[in-house]
Amino acid sequence: MFTSQPIGFVSSPYKETGEVPRGLGAKHDVDGRLKILPQFEAGLTDIEGFSHLIVLWEFDRSQGFQLLGMPPSDNRQHGVFATRSPYRPNPIGMTTVELLRREGANLHVRGVDMLDGTPILDIKPYLSSIPQERLRRGWLAEAEARRK
Amino acid sequence: MFTSQPIGFVSSPYKETGEVPRGLGAKHDVDGRLKILPQFEAGLTDIEGFSHLIVLWEFDRSQGFQLLGMPPSDNRQHGVFATRSPYRPNPIGMTTVELLRREGANLHVRGVDMLDGTPILDIKPYLSSIPQERLRRGWLAEAEARRK
Repeated sequence: MFTSQPIGFVSSPYKETGEVPRGLGAKHDVDGRLKILPQFEAGLTDIEGFSHLIVLWEFDRSQGFQLLGMPPSDNRQHGVFATRSPYRPNPIGMTTVELLRREGANLHVRGVDMLDGTPILDIKPYLSSIPQERLRRGWLAEAEARRK
Repeated sequence: MFTSQPIGFVSSPYKETGEVPRGLGAKHDVDGRLKILPQFEAGLTDIEGFSHLIVLWEFDRSQGFQLLGMPPSDNRQHGVFATRSPYRPNPIGMTTVELLRREGANLHVRGVDMLDGTPILDIKPYLSSIPQERLRRGWLAEAEARRK
């Protein structure tokens, strides 16, 4: 296995966990920056052409993992692999962001839900989508339906 | 930072890197299994309700990283963070699969592009898509256009 290393850090308006919108209908449309370390800047070559990026990052302020947990979007427990819980065996978070512009080693993006200073592990181009009509979303769709 | 640990392993028909379809128009529609370790099985609770899953896994047969590389889909170099290259600072791969059915700690899935025995790091539910018409795909769209 491997030991993770940051390729950069997130600059985000959210300083504390409680400030990040959570639960059903939470909107993630705030702007932030992905500040890539100088030694990795060459890896950003041609990234400007992509409208959306997938950011993998570390839940560096969560301790340990819980296999079952109550997500903010429901009042029932679900398995960690059926949720986006921060308490995961490998503490890896994933966020899709819109790339607004690149300035050298800084990527200005929209849609951050990470805390300020979060270590970035990887960036991948967003290449294709599963059509919305083909998606089933299990307990989350049920929780949304119950709230209506 | 953290040291990765496998939550399970991929069972795939691909035994060697050369067998995995690559490049423009490559289809990933073969079936495989995500064999989750017994101690993590509780984390799968309610995962059956999701049609698609995002699998994070380790490029355990790639050594080191290359910030610039030539992807199989183009004859030009691009930055590692603008490609799905296996030679990444953190060797994390990502694959979206369709969940066919669950049998205990085994998830039968369609769309594997991992090698047999690949360590699985995380599974997340696929919750929403960026509409295809909003996506720009940079060098990849250009490479596709040049091939036509």
